[in-house]
This record gives sequence, C-alpha cells and structure tokens, in this order.
Amino acid sequence: MNLVDIYFEMKKDVEYIENQLELSIDTSVTELYQSSTHLLKAGGKRIRPVFVLLGGKWGDYDVSRLKYVAVPLELIHMATLVHDDVVDNADKRRGRDTVKTKWDNKVAMYTGDYILARALSIVTELKIPRLHQILSGAIVEMVKGEIEQVRALHSWDQNFRMYLRRIKRKTALLIAISCQMGAIASGATEELVRKMYWYGYNVGMAFQITDDILDFTGTEKQLGKPAGSDLRQGNVTLPALYTARHGKSSEQFQKWIREDTFWNHVDEAIQLVRKDEGIAFSQRLAERYIARARQIISDLPDNSTKKSLVGVADFIIDRKF
Amino acid sequence: MNLVDIYFEMKKDVEYIENQLELSIDTSVTELYQSSTHLLKAGGKRIRPVFVLLGGKWGDYDVSRLKYVAVPLELIHMATLVHDDVVDNADKRRGRDTVKTKWDNKVAMYTGDYILARALSIVTELKIPRLHQILSGAIVEMVKGEIEQVRALHSWDQNFRMYLRRIKRKTALLIAISCQMGAIASGATEELVRKMYWYGYNVGMAFQITDDILDFTGTEKQLGKPAGSDLRQGNVTLPALYTARHGKSSEQFQKWIREDTFWNHVDEAIQLVRKDEGIAFSQRLAERYIARARQIISDLPDNSTKKSLVGVADFIIDRKF
Repeated sequence: MNLVDIYFEMKKDVEYIENQLELSIDTSVTELYQSSTHLLKAGGKRIRPVFVLLGGKWGDYDVSRLKYVAVPLELIHMATLVHDDVVDNADKRRGRDTVKTKWDNKVAMYTGDYILARALSIVTELKIPRLHQILSGAIVEMVKGEIEQVRALHSWDQNFRMYLRRIKRKTALLIAISCQMGAIASGATEELVRKMYWYGYNVGMAFQITDDILDFTGTEKQLGKPAGSDLRQGNVTLPALYTARHGKSSEQFQKWIREDTFWNHVDEAIQLVRKDEGIAFSQRLAERYIARARQIISDLPDNSTKKSLVGVADFIIDRKF
Repeated sequence: MNLVDIYFEMKKDVEYIENQLELSIDTSVTELYQSSTHLLKAGGKRIRPVFVLLGGKWGDYDVSRLKYVAVPLELIHMATLVHDDVVDNADKRRGRDTVKTKWDNKVAMYTGDYILARALSIVTELKIPRLHQILSGAIVEMVKGEIEQVRALHSWDQNFRMYLRRIKRKTALLIAISCQMGAIASGATEELVRKMYWYGYNVGMAFQITDDILDFTGTEKQLGKPAGSDLRQGNVTLPALYTARHGKSSEQFQKWIREDTFWNHVDEAIQLVRKDEGIAFSQRLAERYIARARQIISDLPDNSTKKSLVGVADFIIDRKF
C-alpha cells in the first residue's frame, strides 16, 4: 500500500483534523491569528496526525476524540518550527517566508509559545492524565534536544551516539507518542500501546535520518532550499559525520578540522559528502530502523491498518522529498 | 498580620518549595541547567507558591502534594520573565544580568520553552485533569496578554479597559489560579475553590497596578532600574494613561501625542506623571481591588489562614518595593 492510497483511505479524517487545526487558533488576537494561520497554510505532510489516527485504529476508533491528540501533536511540531526559525535565523521554510521574516522575532517567539500552550490545553479536553503527562514530558525532551543541537552546531567533537540521541529527541519521540497516544485515546490494550510507541520510534528515527540524507542528495527544487543547508548552517548530521570519520574523504575532513578551517571549506565539503559512503551508510541505518518497525508490528492481525503502517514505513525509506 | 509574619509562619514549607524548585531543573543539559539556575537564584518574592500554599489550607493541607502545583506556577512565572527579556531586549532584571545577556537569545528562548514544558509536566504528577486544564489554559491567556502588550507598545490608542484586560492576563490570572489550584489540589469545596480564584484575581490586579505605580514613584535603588522604565520602553500603564487623559498635564500630553513627538519627550513626561493625579487614581483603584479581595473572604472562618490572606492583601497595597 503506498502513501497516496493510505492518505486516500484516511482522506475524510485527515481533512477533518486539518479543519480542526485551523479552528484551534484563536481569532481574537490579530497578530497571533495571522502568524499562526500563515504557519498552518505552509502545509506539511501532517504525518503526526496520520500516525495518531493509525494508532487510534487499535481500540475504539473515534476521530472526534482522536482530534484532541492529533491537533496538539501537529501544533507542537509547528511550534518547534517557528522557534527553530528564530534560532536559525531562517528566512524561508518550504520556500515560503517564515513568521520571523514576515513579522519579527517577537511575534515568532510568542506565536510559538501560544501554539505550544494551545496544544497542551487542547489535549486536556480528554480527561486522561496519562496523555497530558506523556505530551508535556515529550516537550521537555524535545527542548533538551533543541539545546543539544545548538551546542552541537559547528562541532566535530561528537559521535554517532550523540547524533542518534539528538534525532530521537528532535523527531522520533514525537512520532512515537503520536502512535502511542492515538492508541491510548482509543482505549487499546497496553501491549498495543507499547507496540505503537516502538513502531513510531523506529519509523521516526528512519524519518529523520532520511531527511538528513535528502538534505545532501536532494535538488534545490525538491528541498525548497539549497542542498547541504544543514552542514552550511553548522548542523553536523550522519552523512557528514560518517564522511569525516570513516569515509574516503576523511583525511581531507580531519585536516580541515585540525587546522580549524573546515567551515571555510563547507561548500567543497558538501560536494565530498555527496560522493562519499556516508550516504549509503545512513541509508542502511535508516533501513534497519524500518526493518525493526516492521518487525514490531509483524504479529499484529493482517488488517488494513497494519498494511497502512507497513506502507508508511516503506514510504519513509523510499521517499525522494 | 504582616508579610514577614506570614512568611515566618510558612517558612518551612516555603523553603521546601524553594528546594523543590531547584530540583525541578534537569542537570544533564549544561546550558539549560546553568541558565535556569541563574534565573532561580535571581530570587523573587515567590508569591505564587505562597498563594498555592494558602489556597491549600482550605482542604487537606499536604505540602508534598501542593508542591506539584506551587513549583509549576513559579516556573511559569520564570519562563515568561525570560521570554519577556528577549522581547524587551532587557540586559538587567532586579539588578542582575538576564539570561539573554549572560548567554544569548537562543539559550533564553529555549530556557523559557524548557521551563514552561517542565511546569506542565510536573503538574501532571497529580492525576487531576482539571488542574492540567486550568494551567495550560492560563498559559494560553498569558501569551495572548504578552502579544497584546507588544501591540500596545508606544500606542496611545488605548483606554483603561484595555489596560485592565492586559494586566489581568499578564498577572492577575496566574495569581488567581495559584490560589484556586492550591484549593483544588487539597480537595477543598467548590465554593472555597471559587472564592480562592476571585480572591487571587483581585489581589493580582492590585499587585500589578501597584507595580505600575512603583515604577514611577520608586527610587532606582528600590526598583533595580531607573524610575519610569515602563514608559521609557513604550509600555503605557495606568498612571501615564490617566495623566494623558484626565490629569493636570493632559493638555501637554495630548499636544505631544498629536504632534507625534511624545516619545522624544519621554523623560519630561515621566516627571509629569510622577507629579500628576494618575498616581493617586491608580492607588485608589488598587485599593478597591484589595477591598473586593477582602470582601470575598470575609465570611470565611477566622483562622490563621484567613488572617494571612488579609495580611498579603494589605501588604500588596502598602508595599514600597
């Protein structure tokens, strides 16, 4: 089952969530409404809501309850984007002006705060304390990941383990709890809740690694920004880390790092990473995570939800954008 | 009963909360730990925890449960301070370097996010969904207040009602829910919960109005910043608003506003506000809020908690710093 089929099958519910997302933004404070709506309209794949809905299929599926989980999870994702754009001083995202460009850093900061608080407020509509605890706890971890990422910027003093911990906090955790909270909200069994968490975790790790690969291999048109943007911004991801440590160009990389001139050669370095073995290595690691995700759900009943979960996993590894 | 007596009577529990506040900050991410601890050590009156404890006296008082409300409320207050310092571009707070000065805006933003998320995570330790809902809902309102404040900066196109709505969101709401949530967490009756909310709301309004008066009447030593800082930053508070509309200097103010030169004369304007009737008008309004707060609790049993609530209310109106 490919992604288009999955979205098609869930179309009505995904559209309902999209609609609820728009309604979640208060219209009474003009700046907030405009900046939040600008963010919303920038779109995105809405994969977190899709994971919530898929998680919700393992209990009593009820989209009018699941929205109280799906909307917050997409909002949290949006809030981190708008705060990241402040920190990264990013003018564009997905080819559109960011909130901080269109308004300013103040509005961007408060928009992020507002969306974050709304997310936590919406989830409390379901009187299930465990959901509130998981969501707020995950945000704590995410912010820790963001700070770690700031610290790791332009640093070669890091290893694979640190990279993996960072992407866990940055991406995998939110996808893991999307699946998990969907299952909890629908009253699924503990075993299914646990499986959904670990399925999401592994898919999320693969998703971020793939993102980090595509940042090197994609075209500017596909990415909405020049290839190699991560490294150019000092964000050392797995393909670059591998190249620097074990790749064909590792000697060249180490020389630049030793001489403290690496960041003067970053355009050359990007070209070297594109041709080096770090890409294939990262791809294999992403595939291992996907294999694990598939394995976790392998003993679930062969229904259409399982097929969708497998389909999403496969899409993530094969995607070109 | 004066404030020193109240703190003295609650000393052990306030110290316990102080200790729990320090423990609430994760030590594993160095930058976060240092910046958060810097914020914590800057001190403050910890009035929100005191209100939580006083609210908690109306049910089964148990500080080991109330900490899950008191710590979050102080953390949220701290988170708004650190984000405000980014927006205000403030170098100093209470005479000390701010997080954004000592580190930078990135760290300040993520520190605020982290503390906010921690606050929401800690309150979920009490499995009372209503508490989670009140807290997250209040943060939404607070952020709306912050945005309104940004919009109102340097604007004379505002009236008393807009000022009051702003300080409600900015200050009164958090004090109201401190009292309310303390009462809920201790299992107090609905009537007491409601009374505690409205007591806190009125005290909070008086607290902020007094703050806004002191910003004009205090000395630099008392304030830790030059008098009139609010107006100098474009923040139009009640004493200035009254002066501009109904004070002895209103003609002078209106002339500057009409000619669009007010902000060139801000130092003169501060001196005029200090000598004008807006100070006394604001003081009377604050006193009315305090009278209402006292009235709300007037039919409660005459125990030491009620005496403390009256004492805090009186302190707020009489304080000189």
